[in-house]
Amino acid sequence: MLECPNCGKIESAGVVPVFCPNCRASLFAAPLSPRAGMKRAVRSKHPHPLVRYGDFLPLEGVDPSLSLGEGNTPLLELKTLERRFGVSLLFAKNEAQNPTGSFKDRGTAVAVQKARLLGFHRIGTVSTGNMAASTAAYGARGGFETYVLLKEGTPEASLRAAGIYGPTLVTVRGDYGRLFHKSLDIGKELGIYFMNSVDPFRLEGYKITGFEIFSALGDRPPGSVFVPLSSGGHLIGLMRAFEDLLGEGLIDDFPTFVGVQAAGCAPLARAFETGQNSAARWTDVRTAAHAISNPSPPAGDAVLRMIRRHRGMILSVSDEDMRRAQDLLAAEEGLFCQPESAASLAGFVKCRKLKSFRRGESAVLVLTGSGLKALQSLDSFPLDIHEFTLDGLEDGFRSLT
Amino acid sequence: MLECPNCGKIESAGVVPVFCPNCRASLFAAPLSPRAGMKRAVRSKHPHPLVRYGDFLPLEGVDPSLSLGEGNTPLLELKTLERRFGVSLLFAKNEAQNPTGSFKDRGTAVAVQKARLLGFHRIGTVSTGNMAASTAAYGARGGFETYVLLKEGTPEASLRAAGIYGPTLVTVRGDYGRLFHKSLDIGKELGIYFMNSVDPFRLEGYKITGFEIFSALGDRPPGSVFVPLSSGGHLIGLMRAFEDLLGEGLIDDFPTFVGVQAAGCAPLARAFETGQNSAARWTDVRTAAHAISNPSPPAGDAVLRMIRRHRGMILSVSDEDMRRAQDLLAAEEGLFCQPESAASLAGFVKCRKLKSFRRGESAVLVLTGSGLKALQSLDSFPLDIHEFTLDGLEDGFRSLT
Repeated sequence: MLECPNCGKIESAGVVPVFCPNCRASLFAAPLSPRAGMKRAVRSKHPHPLVRYGDFLPLEGVDPSLSLGEGNTPLLELKTLERRFGVSLLFAKNEAQNPTGSFKDRGTAVAVQKARLLGFHRIGTVSTGNMAASTAAYGARGGFETYVLLKEGTPEASLRAAGIYGPTLVTVRGDYGRLFHKSLDIGKELGIYFMNSVDPFRLEGYKITGFEIFSALGDRPPGSVFVPLSSGGHLIGLMRAFEDLLGEGLIDDFPTFVGVQAAGCAPLARAFETGQNSAARWTDVRTAAHAISNPSPPAGDAVLRMIRRHRGMILSVSDEDMRRAQDLLAAEEGLFCQPESAASLAGFVKCRKLKSFRRGESAVLVLTGSGLKALQSLDSFPLDIHEFTLDGLEDGFRSLT
Repeated sequence: MLECPNCGKIESAGVVPVFCPNCRASLFAAPLSPRAGMKRAVRSKHPHPLVRYGDFLPLEGVDPSLSLGEGNTPLLELKTLERRFGVSLLFAKNEAQNPTGSFKDRGTAVAVQKARLLGFHRIGTVSTGNMAASTAAYGARGGFETYVLLKEGTPEASLRAAGIYGPTLVTVRGDYGRLFHKSLDIGKELGIYFMNSVDPFRLEGYKITGFEIFSALGDRPPGSVFVPLSSGGHLIGLMRAFEDLLGEGLIDDFPTFVGVQAAGCAPLARAFETGQNSAARWTDVRTAAHAISNPSPPAGDAVLRMIRRHRGMILSVSDEDMRRAQDLLAAEEGLFCQPESAASLAGFVKCRKLKSFRRGESAVLVLTGSGLKALQSLDSFPLDIHEFTLDGLEDGFRSLT
């Protein structure tokens, strides 16, 4: 069962629609009822997140053999960065520790459960990289025929990181936004469940990250949450977790969610700043942050509506800000993430300058993907290497220390 | 306090010796006493493994701010491979989900705790890749000055994956085995704790992986455990976990441990097969499996002694076997590991042909590192990519499905 924010409940037979057939609004998965809620989840401490938080998921059952061990990622306090920025309680939620190295696994894990429940044998996705690898991995795990559609010109590393799982790889020349919609049409016709960025069941997987943050903070909400923002699926899912907690009366204050875009492709930040309800297409993409550069986010309206309803913010940061933040996270805290993931820290730094959040409140940076996926992004930066012979090592060392 | 298997307890002031100053045997960390043991650990369910299993660790205290969220990795049943090989209960313990993408984090996490307790401000390591990144990451996290020594000719990807954390990077021309010992001398002189492959405290970190396997199987030991084998630190640590469990009376049968080497550099497999107590240096290294090609394992005697004591095995597999196993794990189970990690599955396949383990018993493959660390190893394999235009996509898809 799916829900349209305008038209109410939508019945879907066989396929998973992403947009309301009446008004084209983004659809969400409706909770199953009745549910026992967070109190049971907190008590259960079941190691498998899909089981532990099952009451909040739109799944009639969970098949553990489809899982790759996603979730249960660490929430780390960043004490060195707290001192550097003069704040207290700065945390990183490290989604890079998921099975294929990105947050996408959370969403794929729920969507493949739904695919199995609906009787699909074929799944697919449209992706620039992370979601391709994630969908291909879970497709292999579950024995699905898997179709991965990528933009022409996708780097070879991304093709290989998805190709190793043996999906059918297709590169497509043409507009990426149109490809998103086209894939859904093809899926409907050929019986392929395309679990794209804002698939309603994918979004539900991201909710669990929100619940884990709440649990790790001692069953309290953070003051603010910084999330890299592209299509908006991740941000929507995280906000839905706290909507559930609000609905259960477990929190009074909604965290301030901050979506962070790349300045070179920031349609949602522009729409937010100019008070629009819809994001106009971004025509002049100029950023190396490919993982967060969607010029025409398909669920843009929903992101803007939810961010405003919960008094969040959307802002943008430069590629240089992201690179600097990536370096800081690695060199000061030992966390090596993709430059796009470091947009969360870059956004935090920008907000701090704007003095737009309260001191003493906790802030969580969501790190979305592993730096190992983007080693080539470091190629242009100098590596400082000392070279010694074994016999000269001792003297060499003395000169270094 | 350290223990020599021949000479008993060894007091060490200030530095952490790796070999007995009397007989040169590999040293192990002695447990602190008294301890409440596994029953308390099982009851506690503390989310931080170093706290949960603290009774088994030689640490007087744990500083959580040094952690990067290591451990708690999934144990996944491999149902597709079970059917393929006609076995039941085949599992993978996926150590690639550790913070820097390899099992090394388990050991580094314990060694940096010890470094802090001993008052060190400088740490270091000698590594071909995984341990370099791991030590550099934990060094950054803990605010240590960190020194990473690598072989001349280390691939740029490995240098960058360690360099991002900001350590002092040193490449050394000369024999890797001698470098291991030389680093310990330099460390002693300059106050640098070199936490190399068989550091006694590093080994204790690997024990926790063994405890987690025991817990995940419902407090039962597996029938066998397959582990890629190079210096032997990982294998020793895993065996020590089950020695502890045996000592507590929690298991009756010791698992059959199988260490798997690359056929092109297999000094321990050769020594095992020919009944030697020491491994002769391997002079003609011919393998692409750099992460497991140590021609002169410094704790080789200890590995051979422990494997024989517990009726384990050491065998070798070809590079081609590893590559095939890597593909199988990815395409059949959605697990993308380094080729060296897939040595565990390749070893299992070889054992199955030898009929050397009992049907019905559970087997655990330890996957040691993420495939994302070795994307370049896939470069020589063909990628099958279909190319369509957006307008031709529908027809193209029909031809594929």
